[in-house]
Amino acid sequence: MNVILAADIGGTTCKLGIFDEALSLLEKWEINTDISNEGQNILTNVHASFRSRIEKMGFKMEDCHGVGLGMPGPVNFTNGILNGCINLNIEGKSPVSSIFEEISGVKTIVDNDANVAALGEQFKGAGHGHSEVVMITLGTGVGGGVISDGRLIHGIGGSGGEVGHITVDFDERFHCNCGKKGCLETVASATGMVNLAVFHYEKDFKDTVLATEIKDETVTSKSIVEAAIAGDKLGEFVVEEAARYLAIAMSNISVITNPGYFIFGGGVSEAGNYLTDKIRKYYTPLTFPPAAGDMEIVMAELGNDAGMYGAARLVKQYLM
Amino acid sequence: MNVILAADIGGTTCKLGIFDEALSLLEKWEINTDISNEGQNILTNVHASFRSRIEKMGFKMEDCHGVGLGMPGPVNFTNGILNGCINLNIEGKSPVSSIFEEISGVKTIVDNDANVAALGEQFKGAGHGHSEVVMITLGTGVGGGVISDGRLIHGIGGSGGEVGHITVDFDERFHCNCGKKGCLETVASATGMVNLAVFHYEKDFKDTVLATEIKDETVTSKSIVEAAIAGDKLGEFVVEEAARYLAIAMSNISVITNPGYFIFGGGVSEAGNYLTDKIRKYYTPLTFPPAAGDMEIVMAELGNDAGMYGAARLVKQYLM
Repeated sequence: MNVILAADIGGTTCKLGIFDEALSLLEKWEINTDISNEGQNILTNVHASFRSRIEKMGFKMEDCHGVGLGMPGPVNFTNGILNGCINLNIEGKSPVSSIFEEISGVKTIVDNDANVAALGEQFKGAGHGHSEVVMITLGTGVGGGVISDGRLIHGIGGSGGEVGHITVDFDERFHCNCGKKGCLETVASATGMVNLAVFHYEKDFKDTVLATEIKDETVTSKSIVEAAIAGDKLGEFVVEEAARYLAIAMSNISVITNPGYFIFGGGVSEAGNYLTDKIRKYYTPLTFPPAAGDMEIVMAELGNDAGMYGAARLVKQYLM
Repeated sequence: MNVILAADIGGTTCKLGIFDEALSLLEKWEINTDISNEGQNILTNVHASFRSRIEKMGFKMEDCHGVGLGMPGPVNFTNGILNGCINLNIEGKSPVSSIFEEISGVKTIVDNDANVAALGEQFKGAGHGHSEVVMITLGTGVGGGVISDGRLIHGIGGSGGEVGHITVDFDERFHCNCGKKGCLETVASATGMVNLAVFHYEKDFKDTVLATEIKDETVTSKSIVEAAIAGDKLGEFVVEEAARYLAIAMSNISVITNPGYFIFGGGVSEAGNYLTDKIRKYYTPLTFPPAAGDMEIVMAELGNDAGMYGAARLVKQYLM
């Protein structure tokens, strides 16, 4: 039997896994991410940890079909080059797949962390192997991955699946990290909910349990959702608005790739049905009827393991 | 040598073509579409015409790799079932691929006309074989096709590429044939430009050369574009608005599938650079910067032959 190695590399820890040829997980563990020395130790540490573990299991690096890596930055999927990554202390372009192939002697495939997480959830988690799936991760930002016919869509420059940058706020009230305004991320991420709370507190809703936190600049998406569930008018309005903007983005995705499942992950998605019921309310009237009927919203199931599973899946899809 | 048969079936005529294995066109011709008898003669007529032509060329039906058909209605790509088609006088579900396979004894693949036209332009026309392409056809409605990694995206129910139903007019001023409001088609097709002209004539621009046509309900997108180019304020405003709405839809597509080319076809696209220069002006500031830089707008090159080429391409992709 040959094995597949997969790692989801984050700014703090790297999740590593060894899979068999049927993509069953044999072992998983974590190592710390050493971002010193401009991130140059990261790949050698991952390789050393893989090597040590597979040798204990009785395998050699030559027994590996390939290595899949998820990276927390923009990756050119075609050539495996990472184009800078602040979280890993890496500036400029870094040919991650070539470097890892050189260190390990094993074919390596690289994609960004949002894409590998989407692919992991699609084949092993909430997507149940369905071939038409979109994942939307609501964290500090809004990440995503679009899967059609069982494969991630990358597009010409790797911006496929960058659903956080769909324009939905045509009032263009808040700046996005990408340089423009109006992105889904500015109104539906954790940061986006805070943007909306501050904006509408000043404009419409002075009478709110969130007033002190807003004045102290300590308000969070978590406290906004909690206030909303407890019946606070500002909290309710912000969740309603975030849901409406998500529904706009989803209705557009539905006539471009027509997924059967939208999988929600990330901290904000912990609002669960309270959020998704509102999304559905706006989604249905906004959406081309033949596409709307087939849509299901589900919650991510793999947590932090999703990226590792997706990285392994890439090896199976492209290197075997 | 074996051949590929392809037909683009329209409400008035059917375009038929015979291709070699490298997808070079050997012969093309047209027959009239006979929609009598609830459309039941259409496929038998297409088959008879193919059979007669290939026998003159010295081939038999058994020498065919497959048949590709484009149909002017909603098609389930997975099973080749057409779900009703007013233009062909067909009510209810019709298993087009099974029927044609039974008549001809040759494997048959079926898709809708907008998709096969997009695929034809992608591999043989303005897309120059580029793997990441979106086609937008501006006619009475707005049709389209989304191609990623060289293949059409269908999605779970065939609504992939229905770009005319992206919501862009959040004022929801005009009804769409699909049953909802706010679709790109209601503001950027030939009908959509008329919608905008009538709406803004009454609201903002009484002083226009289009006044008589608007009052007589004879105004067309052609006269609107001509008035705009001649400097008429209402005409200019309508083309500007249509361009802005197209740019919104394209900016969203760019972060979902990230195409390198947008191909414009259909009558409205004859406005050419006058329209596309305005689209670019709105597109760039609206679009995620890494995606915007790679985008090119080009004009369709194959005219009415695009669907026939795309249908042949489907045979090569799925039946050979």
